[in-house]
Amino acid sequence: MPKQHPLELFFSPNAIAVIGASREEHKIGHVLVDNLRREGFPNVIPVNPAAEQIQDLKCYPNVQAIPEKVDIAIICIPGQFVPKAIADCGKAGIHHVIIISAGFKEVGNIKLEKQLEAALKKWKVRAIGPNCLGVLAPKTHVDTWFHPLERMRRPEPGGISFAAQSGAVGSAILDLAVKEGHRFAKVISYGNAVNTDESDLIEYLAQDPETKVICLYIEGLQNGKKFLAAAKKAAAKKPVLVLKGGKTAAGAKAAVSHTGTLAGEWPIYKGAFKQAGLVVAENLEEFFDHLKMFELMRIAPKGHRVQIITNGGGFGILTADAIVTSGLSLAQPSAATKAKLKKALPPAASISNPMDLLGDANNERYRAAIEASLADKNIDIVITIILPQVPLIGEDIVDMMGAIYAKAKKPMAVIITGGAFTEKLERKLEEKGIPCFVYPEGAARAIAAAHAWACKKGH
Amino acid sequence: MPKQHPLELFFSPNAIAVIGASREEHKIGHVLVDNLRREGFPNVIPVNPAAEQIQDLKCYPNVQAIPEKVDIAIICIPGQFVPKAIADCGKAGIHHVIIISAGFKEVGNIKLEKQLEAALKKWKVRAIGPNCLGVLAPKTHVDTWFHPLERMRRPEPGGISFAAQSGAVGSAILDLAVKEGHRFAKVISYGNAVNTDESDLIEYLAQDPETKVICLYIEGLQNGKKFLAAAKKAAAKKPVLVLKGGKTAAGAKAAVSHTGTLAGEWPIYKGAFKQAGLVVAENLEEFFDHLKMFELMRIAPKGHRVQIITNGGGFGILTADAIVTSGLSLAQPSAATKAKLKKALPPAASISNPMDLLGDANNERYRAAIEASLADKNIDIVITIILPQVPLIGEDIVDMMGAIYAKAKKPMAVIITGGAFTEKLERKLEEKGIPCFVYPEGAARAIAAAHAWACKKGH
Repeated sequence: MPKQHPLELFFSPNAIAVIGASREEHKIGHVLVDNLRREGFPNVIPVNPAAEQIQDLKCYPNVQAIPEKVDIAIICIPGQFVPKAIADCGKAGIHHVIIISAGFKEVGNIKLEKQLEAALKKWKVRAIGPNCLGVLAPKTHVDTWFHPLERMRRPEPGGISFAAQSGAVGSAILDLAVKEGHRFAKVISYGNAVNTDESDLIEYLAQDPETKVICLYIEGLQNGKKFLAAAKKAAAKKPVLVLKGGKTAAGAKAAVSHTGTLAGEWPIYKGAFKQAGLVVAENLEEFFDHLKMFELMRIAPKGHRVQIITNGGGFGILTADAIVTSGLSLAQPSAATKAKLKKALPPAASISNPMDLLGDANNERYRAAIEASLADKNIDIVITIILPQVPLIGEDIVDMMGAIYAKAKKPMAVIITGGAFTEKLERKLEEKGIPCFVYPEGAARAIAAAHAWACKKGH
Repeated sequence: MPKQHPLELFFSPNAIAVIGASREEHKIGHVLVDNLRREGFPNVIPVNPAAEQIQDLKCYPNVQAIPEKVDIAIICIPGQFVPKAIADCGKAGIHHVIIISAGFKEVGNIKLEKQLEAALKKWKVRAIGPNCLGVLAPKTHVDTWFHPLERMRRPEPGGISFAAQSGAVGSAILDLAVKEGHRFAKVISYGNAVNTDESDLIEYLAQDPETKVICLYIEGLQNGKKFLAAAKKAAAKKPVLVLKGGKTAAGAKAAVSHTGTLAGEWPIYKGAFKQAGLVVAENLEEFFDHLKMFELMRIAPKGHRVQIITNGGGFGILTADAIVTSGLSLAQPSAATKAKLKKALPPAASISNPMDLLGDANNERYRAAIEASLADKNIDIVITIILPQVPLIGEDIVDMMGAIYAKAKKPMAVIITGGAFTEKLERKLEEKGIPCFVYPEGAARAIAAAHAWACKKGH
């Protein structure tokens, strides 16, 4: 059996002890036990010297008293008691802890942070945190987030892994991403990063077979060299997407007061990130566009020539503008493609780029245009615009496009803009694996990022 | 009684004749009658020489045969018969028609377009179209859109009026806007603009008391001088937001083949638009950000100094980045504000800009920070970030903020990011009139646009 990665146990434990478990419903120590169980984690062991039972679970006064093997401990007691709890864990043979507790260097208590560091070293304990939300691993039902399930829906298992310094940014992004249908492998809020930082997590996620895309939100870096080395190695294996807070002087100043890390000069960061092969999102909006593209991308673009297919002339124009603005170019369909489509499409249809299938376009026109574009050597990427307000587009366009997409040897994306009916079609198309965008510029930015990434990788 | 605007009748008719009404359910002439009735328009009169009754309505062979006074006619017969229908309308005393029919200059049939023009002139008939979707006026239930109600939900009455050359862009934008809770006064798809163009519509909407914001999607302009004159006059009265397709050479080329109008050089257009006082959206995403701000804005910004209030440090940083990137600046709260908040907030809270109320922020901390910011002369605009994943933010924050907003003498906006629970709060906050944004950069762009608009207006 190959040696397990030192961080693996955080994401696939058999038994979790909750140090600071509580009977009082509003306390974090209660919510954590409750969330883990509601999320389906099978073996939660509460630890609290003042309780004999929490919910229907036997409660232990300390971890050493637990008879069975515990893989990880979640610690949610007041900060000053954490170093002692680490010693207890060490004595009990628990070498992985997630420290939710705050009150360390983030509030200026450097002394306590040092004590914690020393305890971890002495007892050979690996910690995520302190001052963090911890870990979400949907497949194994690990959930140390104390946010109520009613406030923040947990993700379905999938290919995105996301590490965030900031718990609040992490939670808000995750919550929005889950609403938009993204699926996650591992989510980590790592807080003060006492002995597990973003570089360690990147290294772990790079070798994690479940993780298809690594996403990062960072403000500053403790160790830039270590980060760039880990990021570069990871980026050689899979897309690594990064969003950085504190890019402007004003933002950087805010970052100092938030996490105490120096945010540094954005152009320098950005240059280093790009050199390491990272996909850099300029802002949160772009982060979401890129997330969609890299989560669903099955084939990387082999060139920058985009064919636009539309049932609305104006949307074709807006998309052409966006494509060119984002640095891609419009493909010139071959004479053969034009001849083929001249037969398949009505005379008023425009057979150039954009291809305008007209307002009365039906599924068959779409099929003809998409298949011809996929077969055309002058075309690298196919963007299909679907405006489903018109009556002639049937819901079976989903199956038709899904079948084409499954066999396609070029990347495809869809722009689909509208209300409730549109959103329903969008979700179904995404279930077929096709990345869908509401705004032309979102699609263009994401495809440009995928193209830049593929160039870097030498695809 | 003041003289009615020549276009008013399109939006508030008492009786509408549908020339080309049909008994066959899939035909546009059927859908139009059906939609008008389902939307609650009280007096629809079908016209078709081959039918005696359509649905349960008496059908007339031509408009002259209708005994009662008809205000407008919707024409949806094949293009070649439209000039004759115009003559019929003229003879019947109908001087307002909406021509849905296509087959004119947009397909190269200049001759038919000229015939139509001549007929309209001869019979003194004002036309919207041809090759258009026509008019939606939620308050008066006028609805000439042939898109099924199930595919495209119609808007609630409100303050936005929207005119679009392109029917498909118009419908997709409208559909998305309705989903996002925007409310509309008048929507017009004006197609080939045979004798009613964007300039005429702007002039009408400028004097329309129901219209609070005028929004335009244009590709090219038939008459740039006329447009700029109308736009300038309108912009002096209310915000006029414009999105232009065909900004890049590639997009412009596509626009020529779409509507046959020359899209022209974007920098020249943009300069002229800005000089006329228009709010220019660079792309569709920005159009939506601006739409929200201008629809809900009650008080224009009097300066560029923004105070950020947050319950998540990282989101404060991302927002500070976005504010500075969009050309606004971070306010420096006064010593008095800081002293006030030092008492009201816990010691770990950050009382600068962003103000970080911390992850356990409750409604009272928000109240203290917002009220102090509104009272501070160093602050022009207040952005509040609410990340409602944490348990302590109660739903009553909506009422609290609504009450503050109602009395506020400065513009406020909210950034609220997350899933289903978050979206629920967002909708409720917007019902209180507070503009809410999902992404920091969307909020920043929209506020910057509002500030630029206010500067231009000399607020």
